[in-house]
Amino acid sequence: MGDVCEERSSVCVSGGRTRVLVVGGTGYVGKRIVRACLAEGHETYVLQRPEIGRHEIEKVQMLMSFKKLGAKLVEASFSDHRSLVSAVKLVDVVISAVSGVHFRSHSILLQLKLVDAIKEAGNVKRFLPSEYGMDPSRMGKALPPGRETFDEKMEVRRAIEAAGIPHTYVLGACLASYFAGSLSQLETLFPPKEKVTIYGDGNVKVVFVDEDDMARYIAKTVDDPRTVNKTVYVRPPDNVLTHMELVGIWEKLSGKELDKTHIHAHDFLSNMKHLDNKGQKAGIGFMFHLFYEGCLTNFHVGEDEEASSLYPDVKYTRMVDYLRMFL
Amino acid sequence: MGDVCEERSSVCVSGGRTRVLVVGGTGYVGKRIVRACLAEGHETYVLQRPEIGRHEIEKVQMLMSFKKLGAKLVEASFSDHRSLVSAVKLVDVVISAVSGVHFRSHSILLQLKLVDAIKEAGNVKRFLPSEYGMDPSRMGKALPPGRETFDEKMEVRRAIEAAGIPHTYVLGACLASYFAGSLSQLETLFPPKEKVTIYGDGNVKVVFVDEDDMARYIAKTVDDPRTVNKTVYVRPPDNVLTHMELVGIWEKLSGKELDKTHIHAHDFLSNMKHLDNKGQKAGIGFMFHLFYEGCLTNFHVGEDEEASSLYPDVKYTRMVDYLRMFL
Repeated sequence: MGDVCEERSSVCVSGGRTRVLVVGGTGYVGKRIVRACLAEGHETYVLQRPEIGRHEIEKVQMLMSFKKLGAKLVEASFSDHRSLVSAVKLVDVVISAVSGVHFRSHSILLQLKLVDAIKEAGNVKRFLPSEYGMDPSRMGKALPPGRETFDEKMEVRRAIEAAGIPHTYVLGACLASYFAGSLSQLETLFPPKEKVTIYGDGNVKVVFVDEDDMARYIAKTVDDPRTVNKTVYVRPPDNVLTHMELVGIWEKLSGKELDKTHIHAHDFLSNMKHLDNKGQKAGIGFMFHLFYEGCLTNFHVGEDEEASSLYPDVKYTRMVDYLRMFL
Repeated sequence: MGDVCEERSSVCVSGGRTRVLVVGGTGYVGKRIVRACLAEGHETYVLQRPEIGRHEIEKVQMLMSFKKLGAKLVEASFSDHRSLVSAVKLVDVVISAVSGVHFRSHSILLQLKLVDAIKEAGNVKRFLPSEYGMDPSRMGKALPPGRETFDEKMEVRRAIEAAGIPHTYVLGACLASYFAGSLSQLETLFPPKEKVTIYGDGNVKVVFVDEDDMARYIAKTVDDPRTVNKTVYVRPPDNVLTHMELVGIWEKLSGKELDKTHIHAHDFLSNMKHLDNKGQKAGIGFMFHLFYEGCLTNFHVGEDEEASSLYPDVKYTRMVDYLRMFL
């Protein structure tokens, strides 16, 4: 590891292993980040909130499984600043994966407490806030109520940047388990059997990524000097697909053509009116930005970085292989 | 497998592999049963309810992981009798692990629909209803509201027996993740650090079992002619411990003596009065039956069977080893 350490000297500690703390490590993306960090050889710490110990047996067991894999658990609470400071003092890198979706919990602003702790501790060489989806810096005109997520992520970014904390924003793809397995249909997580709704003409480019690949890119970027203070877009070329292409992949795999109904943007958005649930309303808006506006692909990466170019050694999962498990 | 098949001819099919359907296979105990059945070499089917496909991404991914391990998914719904009949027609054995705890969901009586389907299908050689805890046939005088669980389990048993369905009831131990990791304290799932409440004198014998061992015993019993129409008590001798013994094991492991407060039965039960939550009230009652009355150990197994004697090849986890992961 010595040469890697020299090359990435901005983060490496003696011995060559990067010490990483994952906050939100028992969550949907977080658990993958923990495993990816361990697989990457990082000295991996996982924040253990006291709340977990009271009722959430699956999370307790997940923490224990991380421990078995070599992670270290660190007790700290968002309601105890000193405990957060002590936790971040242990590491070089902090990765946050607190939830930012309304149908789970929307805890993006909790990260302001983490920023305060990192600022006070003064030792953290890289912070990755919870991003991983659409680029909030490009979603200033997003539809409410989902736009709240982007606004809050931007508030966290401003706090990070104001505090001068070196950071990386990793984002830019639809997580495959929600968007690919369902062929991007609402109200299902499995490929539909007979009928599929196509958003508009279905020819807008979208980006899909297996959650485990996302986690691998995250684990790789944390001590990479090329990504300091940059956005890393996850845009693996073979997974930049239109809705029609995604559906076509499944049709070819399953050997069955689906009955397609194209839905116009206006009609799609009118769905939002009938919903009371904030999470569902937000979901409709997100789908609109992704599948009609093409918010993941309607710009060039430019001065920032793209994950699959940075890390060509990651053999990312193509959607044809992802979808195969549903056969 | 040929000789095993002959020996266990009541269940074996041609080829020697027992075909097992797990209902509730994505649940807390069910997921372990699925894995144990696969490890045991059974041809394992997992019921896939349509509800799972709508929102429960973790359960969808769990089903996919089972498929990767070799299980077959069978779509069926409790609200579609024909689908249940078709599902149970595929197998020799049905194992139910539907939830029967109030703080998850209390679905014990749903199993009456499963009994109807098994009765109609006519091919099932063994049914294991969801039991796994205290023996409902011995809990006729249990405290409300928890007693509902026992009453409903008995209702399911009566339906099974009236339909003449060969069955096995596997039960009789406290699941370690809830009862051992917490040193049987309420409101925590981790060993307490300073203080511990001891129930009464702490000298009543209780039985603890690692959930994975429970699942292994279940997977072994399904095609064992010795267990037809019997109760299999899970009472591994080294895991029959008093509360004081359990606490002592942890104190020795951690090298720290805990501050002990003994609580009298009367005072313990008075906790119930202050609670509104049904699940919590039920929990207090269960703890009373377990730790004051000794409901798991105040009788002999008699004509029934004991799991660790039936399957001495299972090297069950001792609580000293279970607790070690919390160090």
